Amino acid sequence: MTGDGREVFAALDIGGTKIAAALVDADGTVQWRGRAATPRTGGDGVVAAAARLLAEAGDAPVRALGVGAPGVIDQETGRVVSATEVLPGWAGTPVRDALAERTGLPVAVVNDVRAMAYGEARDGAGAGHHRVLHVSVGTGVGGALTTGGRLEHGAHGTAGEIAHLLVPERGPVPCGCGRRDHLEAVVSGPAIEAAGDAPHAGSVLGRALAGLLAVLDPDAVVIGGGVAQIGAPFLDAVTAAFRAEALPPLRATPIVPARLGTDAPLVGAARLAMTLRPQGGTR
Amino acid sequence: MTGDGREVFAALDIGGTKIAAALVDADGTVQWRGRAATPRTGGDGVVAAAARLLAEAGDAPVRALGVGAPGVIDQETGRVVSATEVLPGWAGTPVRDALAERTGLPVAVVNDVRAMAYGEARDGAGAGHHRVLHVSVGTGVGGALTTGGRLEHGAHGTAGEIAHLLVPERGPVPCGCGRRDHLEAVVSGPAIEAAGDAPHAGSVLGRALAGLLAVLDPDAVVIGGGVAQIGAPFLDAVTAAFRAEALPPLRATPIVPARLGTDAPLVGAARLAMTLRPQGGTR
Repeated sequence: MTGDGREVFAALDIGGTKIAAALVDADGTVQWRGRAATPRTGGDGVVAAAARLLAEAGDAPVRALGVGAPGVIDQETGRVVSATEVLPGWAGTPVRDALAERTGLPVAVVNDVRAMAYGEARDGAGAGHHRVLHVSVGTGVGGALTTGGRLEHGAHGTAGEIAHLLVPERGPVPCGCGRRDHLEAVVSGPAIEAAGDAPHAGSVLGRALAGLLAVLDPDAVVIGGGVAQIGAPFLDAVTAAFRAEALPPLRATPIVPARLGTDAPLVGAARLAMTLRPQGGTR
Repeated sequence: MTGDGREVFAALDIGGTKIAAALVDADGTVQWRGRAATPRTGGDGVVAAAARLLAEAGDAPVRALGVGAPGVIDQETGRVVSATEVLPGWAGTPVRDALAERTGLPVAVVNDVRAMAYGEARDGAGAGHHRVLHVSVGTGVGGALTTGGRLEHGAHGTAGEIAHLLVPERGPVPCGCGRRDHLEAVVSGPAIEAAGDAPHAGSVLGRALAGLLAVLDPDAVVIGGGVAQIGAPFLDAVTAAFRAEALPPLRATPIVPARLGTDAPLVGAARLAMTLRPQGGTR
């Protein structure tokens, strides 16, 4: 790649089947994209493949690297605390230090849903709002909170996780934690597929958001993830149920679809890289 | 009252049947207390009675006044936006300006549950924790969030309101909003009285907190209000249900009973008064 001399930031979105990479400028615009299959050879192999993919971007003046990755990421160390088997051998991987060593860049690592949420909050559907609740509905149900341009991690790293909110019915599939009367058991992609009723799932999500928004009172809600791509039959049901049940001052809270698509985690990861202080020798 | 020459802050806790007043020093220690019946003569009459009560405190060097009051309070104007009929004619009362005029002091006004929460977060059961969720269980179910020593109001003034979280059962009394599958319909004092099962109500609150804490991830939860005074049969059930259902990293989150009792809203209101900048002529 031949840059225009301006600084850029590198981003990685590490998933169970593919790794996506990008170079993003300081305006949040994607300048280069790359992708590779995720090797099934454990954490070290994934990190090595990600570094090789980044090398394809050429000699652009990259200042820092941001990474969105599955699992719970320790924000102090950039290490994977725990992860499901979507990526075999991923738990325990020292993602930040391993990528810093291989690239020579300062590295920030966050959970992939948070990277997506941060991209949408900064440069996508949530831009301009102080506090944004991001809701991701796909294979699971996830979420993240951005306040004043910063991701919230919470006291124990779970902030924004909406999957386990109680709902007044039992879903057709268990929540990731095993229970059936949790939001994820009714609203996840597999739950909607099993029940065959996307509008009903949308209305349960809208009701749960009415209860939750009284507590969080964000400026906007962004809904993304694979299920959100069902579009109107799902999103209109979410909004209608929310409006019918929310406290009057909350009813006008914007509930908007995500708009950066698969770029969201890359833009978010790059934005996180922008928050890193330059280190000696990286420029 | 004869002070020791140190600055003090005045506080009012305006309720449906009584008005409590206090002088509080900069350490959060109550130096003087007073109380009076709440007149049923409308907002002006209540404000006049509150100012008369404060005058009983004598000539202490009061720097500012904080007020906890029922209803939704506009944080820009200190006016009551809306209120139930607990105080007839209260909605619309310009509490801040009316008390500033009568006392010559800078005045801060917040909702009474927030005043209580702020007192507990700053000087009571939540002291020393960064983010505190205050849960108040009494005639209704309420809540408030304090983060980094500041009350959260939210984008529309509802932040911390937990009454409308969905629960997987129907309560014996309606929630304030009319629905039966909301937390307040199962866990409020009247709901517990109707069902006669405080431990069950506690377990529903504990389950709801497990779902909510994954989103908020506070450092501590403080439980206050009249129902909390049931003590162990209620609070132990809350904690047990929470621990059984919460995500593993959240299970050790402290859930502690409020400890300032009826001083909480007074201390909280005084702490808010301490955040006001001095005005010309008030010292």
